[in-house]
Amino acid sequence: MRFMVVLKVLGVLSAIISAFMIWPLGWAIIDGSSDVLPFVKSVTIGLLTSLAFLFLSRKSKIQDIEAREAFVIVSLSWIVASAIGGLPYLFNGTVKTFTDAFFEAMSGFTTTGASVLTDIQSNPRGILFWRDLTHWLGGMGIIVLSLAVLPFLGVGGMQLYKAEVPGPVPEKLTPRIQQTALLLWGVYVFLSALEVALLLGGGMNLFESLTHTFGTMATGGFSPLNGSIGQYNNPYFDWVITIFMFLAGANFALHYMMLRGDLKAWWKDEEFRFYTIVIFLGIATATSFLYFSETYGSLLESLRYAAFQVVSIVTTTGYVTADYEKWPFYVQYMLLFLMFVGGCAGSTGGGIKNLRIMLLLRHVKNELRRLLHPSAVLHVRTAGQVVERDVIGSVTAFFILYIGLFAVAALFMSALGVDVLTSIASVAATIGNIGPGLGTVGPAENYAHIPLAGKWVLSFCMLLGRLEIYTVMILFLPETWRR
Amino acid sequence: MRFMVVLKVLGVLSAIISAFMIWPLGWAIIDGSSDVLPFVKSVTIGLLTSLAFLFLSRKSKIQDIEAREAFVIVSLSWIVASAIGGLPYLFNGTVKTFTDAFFEAMSGFTTTGASVLTDIQSNPRGILFWRDLTHWLGGMGIIVLSLAVLPFLGVGGMQLYKAEVPGPVPEKLTPRIQQTALLLWGVYVFLSALEVALLLGGGMNLFESLTHTFGTMATGGFSPLNGSIGQYNNPYFDWVITIFMFLAGANFALHYMMLRGDLKAWWKDEEFRFYTIVIFLGIATATSFLYFSETYGSLLESLRYAAFQVVSIVTTTGYVTADYEKWPFYVQYMLLFLMFVGGCAGSTGGGIKNLRIMLLLRHVKNELRRLLHPSAVLHVRTAGQVVERDVIGSVTAFFILYIGLFAVAALFMSALGVDVLTSIASVAATIGNIGPGLGTVGPAENYAHIPLAGKWVLSFCMLLGRLEIYTVMILFLPETWRR
Repeated sequence: MRFMVVLKVLGVLSAIISAFMIWPLGWAIIDGSSDVLPFVKSVTIGLLTSLAFLFLSRKSKIQDIEAREAFVIVSLSWIVASAIGGLPYLFNGTVKTFTDAFFEAMSGFTTTGASVLTDIQSNPRGILFWRDLTHWLGGMGIIVLSLAVLPFLGVGGMQLYKAEVPGPVPEKLTPRIQQTALLLWGVYVFLSALEVALLLGGGMNLFESLTHTFGTMATGGFSPLNGSIGQYNNPYFDWVITIFMFLAGANFALHYMMLRGDLKAWWKDEEFRFYTIVIFLGIATATSFLYFSETYGSLLESLRYAAFQVVSIVTTTGYVTADYEKWPFYVQYMLLFLMFVGGCAGSTGGGIKNLRIMLLLRHVKNELRRLLHPSAVLHVRTAGQVVERDVIGSVTAFFILYIGLFAVAALFMSALGVDVLTSIASVAATIGNIGPGLGTVGPAENYAHIPLAGKWVLSFCMLLGRLEIYTVMILFLPETWRR
Repeated sequence: MRFMVVLKVLGVLSAIISAFMIWPLGWAIIDGSSDVLPFVKSVTIGLLTSLAFLFLSRKSKIQDIEAREAFVIVSLSWIVASAIGGLPYLFNGTVKTFTDAFFEAMSGFTTTGASVLTDIQSNPRGILFWRDLTHWLGGMGIIVLSLAVLPFLGVGGMQLYKAEVPGPVPEKLTPRIQQTALLLWGVYVFLSALEVALLLGGGMNLFESLTHTFGTMATGGFSPLNGSIGQYNNPYFDWVITIFMFLAGANFALHYMMLRGDLKAWWKDEEFRFYTIVIFLGIATATSFLYFSETYGSLLESLRYAAFQVVSIVTTTGYVTADYEKWPFYVQYMLLFLMFVGGCAGSTGGGIKNLRIMLLLRHVKNELRRLLHPSAVLHVRTAGQVVERDVIGSVTAFFILYIGLFAVAALFMSALGVDVLTSIASVAATIGNIGPGLGTVGPAENYAHIPLAGKWVLSFCMLLGRLEIYTVMILFLPETWRR
């Protein structure tokens, strides 16, 4: 482990985060609002941190990164970004404690969208813009991570994507990452621009179009409005955002292929089909329950609310247009269930991911069949290819870790005096990077009342979920840290 | 699939169930109570069923049972036993519908202990005796199944026990089963007799000593009292039952070795150590929370209630001495968490089982280490032996099935209008064969109010959990049914 190399990367990262803070600072200056000074202070601290890190590591070069160094860099990147990124909230008085500032920033960079703010709209635009910008930056990080870094580190079945990502066949990790990153960021920026245009076209102002687009494309969920998207009560906005959440929860490499002209790219992809079917079934049953329980007057209205909420939860965005805790129990539980499914590999969405769920189902079916034919050699296949047993082993371990850590984290929450349902739902909603849960962290509530220690537990869950569990858990093996 | 062979076994089983009903009929006759006729009717129907099955299958011989036939026989055995075993409840008017009768009997034979009776003590002794006798018979079935049948069918890691079970090295399945069954039933009967003696010695009457012993040794949980064991408010009974629940949740093959003189058998066994540590940690933390929350006045009282409830839940018995829904949230959630852990392989306990949890944890650790050493060959070991990869594959698939079916069954419950927490807890408590859950099926409540369709869902969950999931799920593969 070369700590100085790690420090050097973190120095570069701190500079990038600070540079992006200048954008909300711009809003603050235009508005002449109270958050000018907080942003100036935060940028200064960020840059000083960067300089200190770069000075200390001036003799090291970022090259030939080892696997374990990569894991440490990735995990610490999100932690350092959240520590610096939370400063504006603290300096502006938006939150009172560093814990809350860190929670809010971690929730941003992990594209979770769980908030400790009780009155969002009372904040100046710079602060609100920064909240959603952290989503968008986090989303950029995740696209690169899940399609260009993790596949080569062999994390939880992501190696299946080695063959599928665009760009030249890799010789070394670094040039490959740069190539892939640029292509996929292009798609990300293009789709973001499209959503902004559509929202502006529907009459949403520029500030809210930008922030909601950041929240959508990153599957984040922060809104500058207290009532999230529901505050507009506008079917057009609901449907536009539903569609873009759906896109953001799908594999960006497929979008790249579509944009390059391969119009069958989506449907040819098994995971995309599975994802679409899950969402279709979710919407169909939720619409039925909403309609027959007379929660909404018309079938179309039931469909609109059901579609928005199901897509928002499956993609792990977390925007809301209704207080779903007032909906039939079936829909509530189904949303909790879908929090675990999550988006597609290579999207900005969190959760276990559809690809893994597919592989797990096939593994189970094979094991059942093996009881009838003990000597048969049965393989799990995807896209017609045999999946190596090592990959299946990695995916099953991912599932066990995900469920196990979820269950244990909820144990910590309950030990802090949080009720059973809220303990379960708050962890499900943070480890899955969704945001709103059930119980006292439902869509009409927030995370402000969670005990201090609980906020750290949940921040850790956000990090775990966002970095595909392994990337963080590997830091707990002593051999990772050996020199 | 030779259906006539299956029918023949079911004919023998029906006769056995009917024969055992003569015992509660005895109590009914002694008491001259209302349940004489119901039992006479039930025995008659059971024997006629048996004769019909045996007549139809008179040309078939029970020999050379294939794996898939064994799976069908085992699953149908529990279903037929529950259909016949529920008749006394229906004929006596204890329950009003066949659904309730089937639910109560399935809950008995699967050693679950979830009840639809609202006033247990209003029933005559014959009925109450039969309820607990179904537990004890179910427990006998499970010991044989988990130590002598399933290991040879390769179900979910049970093959690890091939080497450990007592008896001669097997050549064919049938003589081996008979040998093993007799030895382990001996242990089961011996421990049962010991518990009856200890309860009698403490002043419990014969009827209640017998029924509570049946409920304990089978890790069932039915009590003839409305208030379960808590109704006595007697520390001696609490501790005796705690100890025997602990024994019933451990591997009976180990008890056999202990009784044969190998006094280190328990502690030499990795699973037993793991099981003991889980229970110790559970009791220690629950005691602390009960004591510091001032739920109970003294540390000793906190320990007594905590120990009873933790052991009751981990072993999947389900006896209660307190309404734990009034305890701190930590203890409530922990009990829900422990429902998934369950007892040891080769016990009468349900749940995922400690052996599997151990193997899953080691699998996960290996997968983490493999990220750092991609070319290393890492094996999961238990008792110093390398566990075959096929076995690990089988155990991971078991876990996925268990969690997946739990989540889907809870979806069905919520669709029937059951609230989110109760949906989760009722399925956890039935698939784990525990009995009481949380929400509206807590320790102070029962399952009477669950919608009709929900009772069938939960009956199916009991069967799934009791037969190690695979045994039932394999019936859904078309190739199982091919002639």
